[in-house]
Amino acid sequence: MEIILAKQAGFCFGVKRATHLAFEAAERGGETYTLGPIIHSPQVVQRLEEMGVKALPNVDDIESGTIIIRSHGVAAHELDDAMTRNLEIVDATCPFVKKAQDHVAGLSKAGYDVVVVGDLDHPEVQGIVSYATGRVFVVSCEEEAQKLPRMSKIGVVAQTTQSFETLKEVVDVCLEKGSEIRIYNTICDATAVRQEEAKALAGKVDCMLVIGGFNSANTKRLAEVCAELLPRTHHIETASQVDPAWFDGVKKVGVTAGASTPKWLIDEVLERITEVERDKKR
Amino acid sequence: MEIILAKQAGFCFGVKRATHLAFEAAERGGETYTLGPIIHSPQVVQRLEEMGVKALPNVDDIESGTIIIRSHGVAAHELDDAMTRNLEIVDATCPFVKKAQDHVAGLSKAGYDVVVVGDLDHPEVQGIVSYATGRVFVVSCEEEAQKLPRMSKIGVVAQTTQSFETLKEVVDVCLEKGSEIRIYNTICDATAVRQEEAKALAGKVDCMLVIGGFNSANTKRLAEVCAELLPRTHHIETASQVDPAWFDGVKKVGVTAGASTPKWLIDEVLERITEVERDKKR
Ligand code: F3S
Ligand code: F3S
Repeated sequence: MEIILAKQAGFCFGVKRATHLAFEAAERGGETYTLGPIIHSPQVVQRLEEMGVKALPNVDDIESGTIIIRSHGVAAHELDDAMTRNLEIVDATCPFVKKAQDHVAGLSKAGYDVVVVGDLDHPEVQGIVSYATGRVFVVSCEEEAQKLPRMSKIGVVAQTTQSFETLKEVVDVCLEKGSEIRIYNTICDATAVRQEEAKALAGKVDCMLVIGGFNSANTKRLAEVCAELLPRTHHIETASQVDPAWFDGVKKVGVTAGASTPKWLIDEVLERITEVERDKKR
Repeated sequence: MEIILAKQAGFCFGVKRATHLAFEAAERGGETYTLGPIIHSPQVVQRLEEMGVKALPNVDDIESGTIIIRSHGVAAHELDDAMTRNLEIVDATCPFVKKAQDHVAGLSKAGYDVVVVGDLDHPEVQGIVSYATGRVFVVSCEEEAQKLPRMSKIGVVAQTTQSFETLKEVVDVCLEKGSEIRIYNTICDATAVRQEEAKALAGKVDCMLVIGGFNSANTKRLAEVCAELLPRTHHIETASQVDPAWFDGVKKVGVTAGASTPKWLIDEVLERITEVERDKKR
């Protein structure tokens, strides 16, 4: 049985980088904190905790030590607070998120009213928005964009996980709201690329495993997308859930994983599949 | 019979201004030329000719005197040529067209590849394009935009008479071609506003007259739009074409005119209608 692991399985560039920076800081030792969970992975957060890294909701209670900024960034004033307190800062904000923050700051400075295409409840968006020094609006869809006032110069950025369709729709509305529109397409295509690759893989294997939290939205979506093409798709969280019966008559098995699934979980699953095969041959 | 003249009948702001500047220059006397026809109106061009103003295709043959730049502008090098020759320049370029030219120059300077949404054959577009110092493309529709290469920073301007729909479609494609898009909506709404007003007028009168050249695209379109709502719509070029029979049983007559129709032609038609009515009452 051939096992094919998707190239884009698991951590995206930004999550990989943030995790790396966090473990590096943890290994250096000393008082170390993260501002909110470093990435959306309970396993990673737990491992860091075991190494003495605490996740705190804000900097208020921290007097000294190192503070790690999570992958989707924090509000400008939180970073300022950390600097004022003379904490050592490890900025694990994903460079793509940072770019969106910088563009908002630049647009504000250049006199643009800023429109952020995204979800107001998401911490990434709250962080991005905080970099505006002038007017800023958050819209998640065309209907919300319709309610924007008329403006003369409009700057547009997007939450990194927005769909391209929504960005397009909001831009179309903005064209009716102002005479100059400046758009930075800050959408990160990691999610879209992972899905496309998974679809291609599901099309050429007999069985597909998708690894990631049952409550992870992007993993669930990934499993759905594969199941549409290949009913023999199984969404699992850990290696122990692998059922040997799944591989009956299977020549090729595909494996992928959500954005918050650490490599060690993927490796455990790959090992488990090999084990199952060995057992069968005996 | 009530006669209602549309507020937006005839010359738009830019054509009015250009005509005014041209007649002013003509009255000052001396050698005076226009670079191409000053506006798209044979009557105006003829009147200027009678006052000694010649329309020339380029500046090559002009050694001295005054040169009037037409409403839809000229290419940057033609203006430079005129300056080099020490000619007196009366720049009747519509300020809205000028804006599009300036934005193209500014975008090029700021490192943007420029996309002009418009018709490559139109002199206005050729003028606008000439202000680019970097890469510049002209696209008239979505399909043409699809063929654009990938670019990093894209600046977009529109020919002043473009439809908003086309601008939107091209912008949507540009969003897929580059990561930063800066759009100046340089569409002038004079034509759209005139059509909307004409439609509203056609809806409340019994008979509608649309004045303008039979070969004028915008006048023909204006007549079509009215005829759809009111079959008793008549497209005429001059007062002599008014047929008294048109007003049988008519309580209200609406009058509008294309963008290149001079006020004196409209006045003659209004007088003619009044005359027809007077004759009938006798
Ligand atoms: S965290 Fe990941 S999903 Fe994109 S924006 Fe950064 S690479
Ligand atoms: S010439 Fe007229 S149609 Fe608009 S761009 Fe200038 S006012």
